Amino acid sequence: MHLPPKHIAESTIRRLSLYLRFLEEFEARGQTTVSSGELARSGGTTSAQVRKDLSFFGSFGKRGLGYGVKDLIASIREILGLEHPWPVVIIGAGKIGAALAQYRGFSTRGFHVVGMYDSDPAKIGTMFGTITVRDARELEQDIAARAPRIAVLCVPSEAAQGMVDRVVAAGVKAILSFAPAPLQAPDDVSLRAVNMATELEILAYSLTHAK
Amino acid sequence: MHLPPKHIAESTIRRLSLYLRFLEEFEARGQTTVSSGELARSGGTTSAQVRKDLSFFGSFGKRGLGYGVKDLIASIREILGLEHPWPVVIIGAGKIGAALAQYRGFSTRGFHVVGMYDSDPAKIGTMFGTITVRDARELEQDIAARAPRIAVLCVPSEAAQGMVDRVVAAGVKAILSFAPAPLQAPDDVSLRAVNMATELEILAYSLTHAK
Repeated sequence: MHLPPKHIAESTIRRLSLYLRFLEEFEARGQTTVSSGELARSGGTTSAQVRKDLSFFGSFGKRGLGYGVKDLIASIREILGLEHPWPVVIIGAGKIGAALAQYRGFSTRGFHVVGMYDSDPAKIGTMFGTITVRDARELEQDIAARAPRIAVLCVPSEAAQGMVDRVVAAGVKAILSFAPAPLQAPDDVSLRAVNMATELEILAYSLTHAK
Repeated sequence: MHLPPKHIAESTIRRLSLYLRFLEEFEARGQTTVSSGELARSGGTTSAQVRKDLSFFGSFGKRGLGYGVKDLIASIREILGLEHPWPVVIIGAGKIGAALAQYRGFSTRGFHVVGMYDSDPAKIGTMFGTITVRDARELEQDIAARAPRIAVLCVPSEAAQGMVDRVVAAGVKAILSFAPAPLQAPDDVSLRAVNMATELEILAYSLTHAK
């Protein structure tokens, strides 16, 4: 892997994450090599796109022989930064927070929930799997002690910006928010928002404008 | 609104959905006009991008006067196809399905959950808000009767492709899947996948490659 250019489009990273899933499936089935065409078909894209996405990060595979499945898995994991586990805190133990705390897809990809927080006394002390919900007032001291790298916010919209400010002040540089609210963070913090309604709106658009 | 070109990038639709959220906030605060610069600042983009996104769909706003908040809300709702409600079924009443069934953001945007399904006898008959979980075997007859336009799949990965095939055969043309599995659908079906792990992987990438 060589140093990638400064601005890789998010769509490229998203496709790499998808290729990684398919490669892991191929590996589980005992397949040792894969062509860009096979990867493209699984991902609903073109082989030229697969080759272009990978070319940002180095030279992979051999002309006419395709990619070694194991090698390409290792390379994409390195590109995405998944060779080591990432400690994550979940803030908000409502329905979405609870679903995420038990989402198997996180731990299998190396994202380890090291803490879960809520300010509701009825929720503090509840257990989700092996995680006990702690008082949100403990957040700053816990962040200082356990250094989670990513905070997942599952708090109500009206509490979301205040919580972004708190975790940023405590030193967290990556935030994933499920609150349907516009949020601001400093330039050196990566802030992503997942909005379930937006996903449905994109479908509504495609249904409305279908031929 | 004029007829948009055949291929509008998903990122454009995603931004329109975001602008709509900000516009509704502006309206709630009593603001009657907004500049492309204000919309751009809220959305973390540029005013040129705001004007370009809107220009695909017609001519909005007046030079020097900005956009009328109410008018632009109506126009974007029309573009996204949100002037009428969309009936939605949720398939899978596990943790994510249950969280989505009670997600207020859906109904406030016009997405109405008209049915919820599971094949687990322990879940059939359970109520989430006003929705009772029905036997997944009833799915085809219910789709024929109630004509949901969008199916949200919250089933395990190994069941996901089979369920896609079933709802497609029953006539559903838009699917949102939360299963972390590669899925295929015919070209005339819009299939979107939300993968929580991918969202964290994009953050891991940005943390790994931060200056």
